Amino acid sequence: MTQTESKVSTTVDFSVDGKHYGHLSIPHSRNDSGWGALHLPIVSIRNGDGPTLVLTGGNHGDEYEGPIALMKLARSLDAQEINGQVIVIPALNYPAVLAGQRVSPIDGVNMNRAFPGSRDGSVSSMIAHFVHQKILPLADAVLDIHSGGKTMMFSPFACYHRLVDTDLMEKAKQAVLAFAAPVSLELVELDAEGMLDTAVEDLGKIFISCELGGGGTTTTGTVSIAEVGARNLLAHFNIINEQPQSLEDRGLSPTRLMHMPDANCYVISNDAGIYEALIDLNSPVKAGDAVGQVHFPEKPELPPAVYRVERSGVLVGRAHKALVESGDFLALIAAEI
Amino acid sequence: MTQTESKVSTTVDFSVDGKHYGHLSIPHSRNDSGWGALHLPIVSIRNGDGPTLVLTGGNHGDEYEGPIALMKLARSLDAQEINGQVIVIPALNYPAVLAGQRVSPIDGVNMNRAFPGSRDGSVSSMIAHFVHQKILPLADAVLDIHSGGKTMMFSPFACYHRLVDTDLMEKAKQAVLAFAAPVSLELVELDAEGMLDTAVEDLGKIFISCELGGGGTTTTGTVSIAEVGARNLLAHFNIINEQPQSLEDRGLSPTRLMHMPDANCYVISNDAGIYEALIDLNSPVKAGDAVGQVHFPEKPELPPAVYRVERSGVLVGRAHKALVESGDFLALIAAEI
Amino acid sequence: MTQTESKVSTTVDFSVDGKHYGHLSIPHSRNDSGWGALHLPIVSIRNGDGPTLVLTGGNHGDEYEGPIALMKLARSLDAQEINGQVIVIPALNYPAVLAGQRVSPIDGVNMNRAFPGSRDGSVSSMIAHFVHQKILPLADAVLDIHSGGKTMMFSPFACYHRLVDTDLMEKAKQAVLAFAAPVSLELVELDAEGMLDTAVEDLGKIFISCELGGGGTTTTGTVSIAEVGARNLLAHFNIINEQPQSLEDRGLSPTRLMHMPDANCYVISNDAGIYEALIDLNSPVKAGDAVGQVHFPEKPELPPAVYRVERSGVLVGRAHKALVESGDFLALIAAEI
Amino acid sequence: MTQTESKVSTTVDFSVDGKHYGHLSIPHSRNDSGWGALHLPIVSIRNGDGPTLVLTGGNHGDEYEGPIALMKLARSLDAQEINGQVIVIPALNYPAVLAGQRVSPIDGVNMNRAFPGSRDGSVSSMIAHFVHQKILPLADAVLDIHSGGKTMMFSPFACYHRLVDTDLMEKAKQAVLAFAAPVSLELVELDAEGMLDTAVEDLGKIFISCELGGGGTTTTGTVSIAEVGARNLLAHFNIINEQPQSLEDRGLSPTRLMHMPDANCYVISNDAGIYEALIDLNSPVKAGDAVGQVHFPEKPELPPAVYRVERSGVLVGRAHKALVESGDFLALIAAEI
Amino acid sequence: MTQTESKVSTTVDFSVDGKHYGHLSIPHSRNDSGWGALHLPIVSIRNGDGPTLVLTGGNHGDEYEGPIALMKLARSLDAQEINGQVIVIPALNYPAVLAGQRVSPIDGVNMNRAFPGSRDGSVSSMIAHFVHQKILPLADAVLDIHSGGKTMMFSPFACYHRLVDTDLMEKAKQAVLAFAAPVSLELVELDAEGMLDTAVEDLGKIFISCELGGGGTTTTGTVSIAEVGARNLLAHFNIINEQPQSLEDRGLSPTRLMHMPDANCYVISNDAGIYEALIDLNSPVKAGDAVGQVHFPEKPELPPAVYRVERSGVLVGRAHKALVESGDFLALIAAEI
Amino acid sequence: MTQTESKVSTTVDFSVDGKHYGHLSIPHSRNDSGWGALHLPIVSIRNGDGPTLVLTGGNHGDEYEGPIALMKLARSLDAQEINGQVIVIPALNYPAVLAGQRVSPIDGVNMNRAFPGSRDGSVSSMIAHFVHQKILPLADAVLDIHSGGKTMMFSPFACYHRLVDTDLMEKAKQAVLAFAAPVSLELVELDAEGMLDTAVEDLGKIFISCELGGGGTTTTGTVSIAEVGARNLLAHFNIINEQPQSLEDRGLSPTRLMHMPDANCYVISNDAGIYEALIDLNSPVKAGDAVGQVHFPEKPELPPAVYRVERSGVLVGRAHKALVESGDFLALIAAEI
Repeated sequence: MTQTESKVSTTVDFSVDGKHYGHLSIPHSRNDSGWGALHLPIVSIRNGDGPTLVLTGGNHGDEYEGPIALMKLARSLDAQEINGQVIVIPALNYPAVLAGQRVSPIDGVNMNRAFPGSRDGSVSSMIAHFVHQKILPLADAVLDIHSGGKTMMFSPFACYHRLVDTDLMEKAKQAVLAFAAPVSLELVELDAEGMLDTAVEDLGKIFISCELGGGGTTTTGTVSIAEVGARNLLAHFNIINEQPQSLEDRGLSPTRLMHMPDANCYVISNDAGIYEALIDLNSPVKAGDAVGQVHFPEKPELPPAVYRVERSGVLVGRAHKALVESGDFLALIAAEI
Repeated sequence: MTQTESKVSTTVDFSVDGKHYGHLSIPHSRNDSGWGALHLPIVSIRNGDGPTLVLTGGNHGDEYEGPIALMKLARSLDAQEINGQVIVIPALNYPAVLAGQRVSPIDGVNMNRAFPGSRDGSVSSMIAHFVHQKILPLADAVLDIHSGGKTMMFSPFACYHRLVDTDLMEKAKQAVLAFAAPVSLELVELDAEGMLDTAVEDLGKIFISCELGGGGTTTTGTVSIAEVGARNLLAHFNIINEQPQSLEDRGLSPTRLMHMPDANCYVISNDAGIYEALIDLNSPVKAGDAVGQVHFPEKPELPPAVYRVERSGVLVGRAHKALVESGDFLALIAAEI
Repeated sequence: MTQTESKVSTTVDFSVDGKHYGHLSIPHSRNDSGWGALHLPIVSIRNGDGPTLVLTGGNHGDEYEGPIALMKLARSLDAQEINGQVIVIPALNYPAVLAGQRVSPIDGVNMNRAFPGSRDGSVSSMIAHFVHQKILPLADAVLDIHSGGKTMMFSPFACYHRLVDTDLMEKAKQAVLAFAAPVSLELVELDAEGMLDTAVEDLGKIFISCELGGGGTTTTGTVSIAEVGARNLLAHFNIINEQPQSLEDRGLSPTRLMHMPDANCYVISNDAGIYEALIDLNSPVKAGDAVGQVHFPEKPELPPAVYRVERSGVLVGRAHKALVESGDFLALIAAEI
Repeated sequence: MTQTESKVSTTVDFSVDGKHYGHLSIPHSRNDSGWGALHLPIVSIRNGDGPTLVLTGGNHGDEYEGPIALMKLARSLDAQEINGQVIVIPALNYPAVLAGQRVSPIDGVNMNRAFPGSRDGSVSSMIAHFVHQKILPLADAVLDIHSGGKTMMFSPFACYHRLVDTDLMEKAKQAVLAFAAPVSLELVELDAEGMLDTAVEDLGKIFISCELGGGGTTTTGTVSIAEVGARNLLAHFNIINEQPQSLEDRGLSPTRLMHMPDANCYVISNDAGIYEALIDLNSPVKAGDAVGQVHFPEKPELPPAVYRVERSGVLVGRAHKALVESGDFLALIAAEI
Repeated sequence: MTQTESKVSTTVDFSVDGKHYGHLSIPHSRNDSGWGALHLPIVSIRNGDGPTLVLTGGNHGDEYEGPIALMKLARSLDAQEINGQVIVIPALNYPAVLAGQRVSPIDGVNMNRAFPGSRDGSVSSMIAHFVHQKILPLADAVLDIHSGGKTMMFSPFACYHRLVDTDLMEKAKQAVLAFAAPVSLELVELDAEGMLDTAVEDLGKIFISCELGGGGTTTTGTVSIAEVGARNLLAHFNIINEQPQSLEDRGLSPTRLMHMPDANCYVISNDAGIYEALIDLNSPVKAGDAVGQVHFPEKPELPPAVYRVERSGVLVGRAHKALVESGDFLALIAAEI
Repeated sequence: MTQTESKVSTTVDFSVDGKHYGHLSIPHSRNDSGWGALHLPIVSIRNGDGPTLVLTGGNHGDEYEGPIALMKLARSLDAQEINGQVIVIPALNYPAVLAGQRVSPIDGVNMNRAFPGSRDGSVSSMIAHFVHQKILPLADAVLDIHSGGKTMMFSPFACYHRLVDTDLMEKAKQAVLAFAAPVSLELVELDAEGMLDTAVEDLGKIFISCELGGGGTTTTGTVSIAEVGARNLLAHFNIINEQPQSLEDRGLSPTRLMHMPDANCYVISNDAGIYEALIDLNSPVKAGDAVGQVHFPEKPELPPAVYRVERSGVLVGRAHKALVESGDFLALIAAEI
């Protein structure tokens, strides 16, 4: 055993054909379990040496489209019917998922800032390290399913990053289009360190992300986007012998290709109070429009603080939380490319 | 001072004309404030001896249509333009509102089970006692604005209780119709003890409640229902010289008069896991329809537990929370009267 | 519905023959479940109008012989093979059992001081109230299985109370002898208010209790005493057509009939530190013997404080916890009758 | 045992001559001590049937002059040298004293609102009940030593209440003068329910209180006032054969006899922020003087909110805490009688 | 963006003339704000390229002279009237200031051991990193205002460190004398790693610190020392066109130049109990004097543990907290140089 | 002072003859003690330059044989009667011992994964760093006394590691045999990083460990094994002039030399529920035997999940905790060598 080998073990042999439900075992000695470990569920479905897609949900523990759609997908797939391999981690930050919160209750870590992890780090860091060392090298592409969590709400979109490697970026864009969310977004990630996204892209693999709703709940619509989108990616990468199901196939409008060109896309609170949104998601906005206002319950006589958008576009994200503080996210504007 | 007089004092003299912002002062000696008190905002707007409407929000601290709409209403009203009195308590369980949670962080009390309160009870109980002793006797009618809070989501409705006093019930029904929510519901409250509702009705006053959304957030639509509804009640009770603004006036469908005839209207979980709703709010349901299912993240290989409705009707409420336990509310069915 | 009727509902109809697994539903509105309830498992096994035995475990949530033995017993019984009724509540303080602690994590209540409970009390009080109103009236006898929990360890004994009603006391004594624990103890309960024991006895029903080990764990021996003992009571009360299995039948020594005649039976700490027992459970002690000593880890140079027994007898209980405070229980002495 | 008898036992026999250190034992079953009790130290020093003075400190757990002075006094007294009885409870809310906080960490109770207590209440209530039932009946007079605790600071004063029973009031006033604090204050207690003070006075006994500094610390000066004052009361009541030591005897100015005639004596915050006192304790103030101001660290550009006194007098109390909320005590003005 | 650039952004452009209130924005994704940030107030007042003084308060969150005096100073300064630049951070450990505690409630970090910080560390570390990278390079001198916080009380002093760079040390000494606190102290910092002090001095800049009282409160005197001292430094560094105001100018005694030559200056507790100071601040002490004693509330019969000073000098610091543990600071002695 | 020197100081001079009780002082600035430190007791007993044995207990804070036996041993030893040096740290993770939990309440660190520590790490890391830098270099051998803690129970054994350095391993084996526990175990530590064991062995010193019971308690038997074992090592290393006392000397069976050859020795839970052990400690097991089962209190109707051993041997360890989760340790099998 070298110093860099993961301390995490697994009951699943990813090189074996068939469908295998198992778990990662992450050592976790603690007051209430001296020799305890964390068992994190994982599924491998494999049929020969074809393309490999890794599917993750629960990167943040209060985002539910991923865990729901991926558990359903794993149960629905038959190893004989696929070509290549599908590795499913329905709840990547599993302790956070069990607790229903964004970050791990064990170490307070945001899993999406924990990559590439460390073999003797905290539990979250050991999970990231194992995924980085043992799972990502098997992948051709990775889909990580997000939504807004308990504090944000998004108009459903799939997204890819603007990358220096334009070939990889184009492949990601095509995968995003195959995913078929109502909006397809090109993102410049301002602070990409520690993200699963970056870990995948740095290995030269295709990475697809999405934000499918939020508020700590799901709707039939957002789960459906995740289910169809994940299956569409299996088709896109020829792992299942199907055609991706486009929005038009489903009788819906075609995806809107959008981007967020600069920091003016974000509206941030400078006040603490109760937030009232004045514009609904998906609505067009013009620079200067009042997007929301913060009321002051301690002093009801005070007028609210009004927040205006600095650029025109479409409202694609908003604070779901009502009780905001200075520094909190209020609104997100995207523009058609 | 008698043994039954409230320990709560107030800076507002409710018998004086004009608009007065002030607070209740509830004694609250504690580790971080030896002689401390809680200041709870209250507004009185009065012009002569006409009818009196009491408006409360924040009875549960994670329901925001009430606080937002009532702070806006209080600021918008001019004492000279009204006839009678409007008393506004935007955040009835004020510590809960500041904490963004259903029950009070001070004493863990659900304010809507704390009435009629006690003069030497906990903070919540002292608030209830003051409201019961000093505010409710002034009222002709009380509107208490609710929504689903962080764990539930409702199709917006206003409601009145089925009462033995049919005259009072009819007055409440007419007020609910004036409020003009998309659904108007007649309720049989199975466990009415301790509610503000019951405290008001036991005094022979008109009580109107509503559930306008939920999930710990608001939309432009739910806030608008609250704002228009509250103003409609002022008009209905002749406190402002206006006509109530009907749904039809606003180009909307007329209110649907519904009820929940029996306990079969509720679907309750017997499992712990991640809830996926299979039917959207406002959709019609038939007895036997699968309304949702609970997935098991510890064992992704297990099929979900499916929950079915026991009666036909319309889905007017659902769990907003995704992580459910046995005993949690999943779905609510109402039927047209 | 009257003011005294329980707010707790149940899915089990105790008047119906057959084996029925169900739950009590205790209303529990809270921040993370607005319309939530607690589902507490209960089992009814019934065949006609014969004698009824109520079996409870988990009265304290860190005592495990009861829940284990009673779940096994419930699964093993066939309704057709019994005469009368067996009602099993494997985890009476269910939230405490799920948390692995003595008292309820919801309200901090020691269930065995919560009887007869209150319909609008806290969750524990509502459970006690339902049991007192709906279950105890059905019973001829009640067995409540205890052990020492995480902080105490007992030499296994079954016990009955010295009662003014000597007829009832004699019936309880005979049941205790049928239970067949290694020690059978006659107890004078100094502070009997609020106990399930007292609630049962005040209704004129037979009550049998026991303390079968402790330390927050079980052994094969202590579980076996519980399993055989519970089955012996079914036989003793003619609910199953068997003979109670005596200790002698099992090749063991006969039960020792003991009592604890006065407060001198208890040794209590006046110091805070690390407790070292100097005598093992079941050992004979003489007045003046050193039973244990408290060491002072802050000042290792200090000699320990030695604790001596004030009366002769047998050591039947000891502190399992090592870190003691002034006021903590250290040792319990019983004497042969 | 009757239903009203205390569940608390004690190792001290208060009817026996001599100096006896012992404790009260308050039953306290809890997760970390199944059969645990709280041992609360108490001292009885007795020599015959003369007058009895009860001395209490630590009524609030973050006030230290009482515990320090009373432990020193108890050690210094020799039973043979006194006439009558001195009962010392250095830490009345003992769990709060051990935690260094105002209210009990066990039940959150302010001991000075817990009288007369209840035999089956929480730990604080059981302590109050025992003191009320077993200790107060023995007393001729009670001295309860307070200071401002961690959140308030007072100019040292002793005080008596304005009473309907003018004879009892005059006796208390004479005792306060004998105590010899720099200020002697006549108080109208607006909310006297639950106080030790009221419990004593309702029994027709003399009650002396004091506030000797605060801030969660002591100075040599404040401890000295407590030590001399307690000893002066022993002399005043002829329990020790000495003369009270007057302020003049100690080369100090005579006590100032003051009162707080109305609610205008209090200055209360309506803001949340950092409090800056603008006037020092003991300084004279005129109506309209700025006594302090609240700064807003979230918005340093805002001017502070200035607080002014509503009446002239002397500043005898102030907020020691810097981080204030709306409802917090800021300043206390007394006036010469 | 390089790997070493701060992740913290700011709304203030420090290179622009005029008075600018703004904030630092420190990324802080967390359960209750998925895309949240911390907004930390900062002020820049600039008029041309003259000398630059950085002023910080709230390095520890329970020390209030700094935040109060610096907010007042910032509001009082007019950009046109200064020469050079003043950068004010009234609450350096802003989350700790809002919580009223020494260390950050977010990450438990003592800000004064967090320098030079790290770009991807915790919130405190990111603040330190920004200050080190972006603010300190602009400074000629830095004043950091401390006091004793909730657990210590100091006789007000300003101080400079004994440095190898005697020129820098002399400049710091002159600045300290200009500050004009009652005591001017030369310090040997035994454990200087991680301090703001060291970060500044390592950059060759002048650093002035002070300890102006404590106990978690302020007095008019300690705030005044901070206000006058900060303004004196502006004058000393020719940023404002004034003369520093000496103690003598204010009719006070001249500053006493003192030092703490060795570890014998500290008195540390070896006991847990209630601390009683026996000597007041500012008093002279002789080696062997009893400076305080620890009482044992669990065993009032025990004599207290007496603590004596090991060297002569003046008592300049003491424990403000009363409840001490082994290892706690009790007293600090300084000697005239 | 260099950057690598420990920040921890000590009152004990380990180079001086005689018996010295003192403490380590670990800097620990915190909210409730600004300049606080942790005082950790340590004892040095020395007589000339003979061999040195370091004895540690409380490496995990809920394991009590070490602290008890080592405090007793330290008090019993007379410096004149020994040859060489004995250094005793009865509570290595002292904060954990005072809290009665496995890991430190200050930083959550498992001390036995904190070696070799860091001079500016958390409190646990600073302790490990001091021990590694200042204590271990003095040692010829180290005995670290463990037991199962609150969550595990072991059949008492002493153990040594299989080492590449066979000479060192043989010396450790001989020491283990001299210790004379009922079982002597040869261990392959799968994850040895950070252990005190590894830190000692890497320095080429002899390391002896043991596991002497568990459950968060002690018995007369387990304490006796520790006391005799520690004294036997003093004799074995010629520090005291005695012969080790063998098991046979004490009329007991000779030690059983065992090992744990592979990962099949461990039984781990895949379920959450209440664990019932079906086999007692010290019992022989055959591959396939059911060693225990997990019951499901939420669904008493479900059969338990049965766990079977994968290899034959003797049950030497089991879960003491009853409430297990997936990933928890259930059973440990050893085999005779």
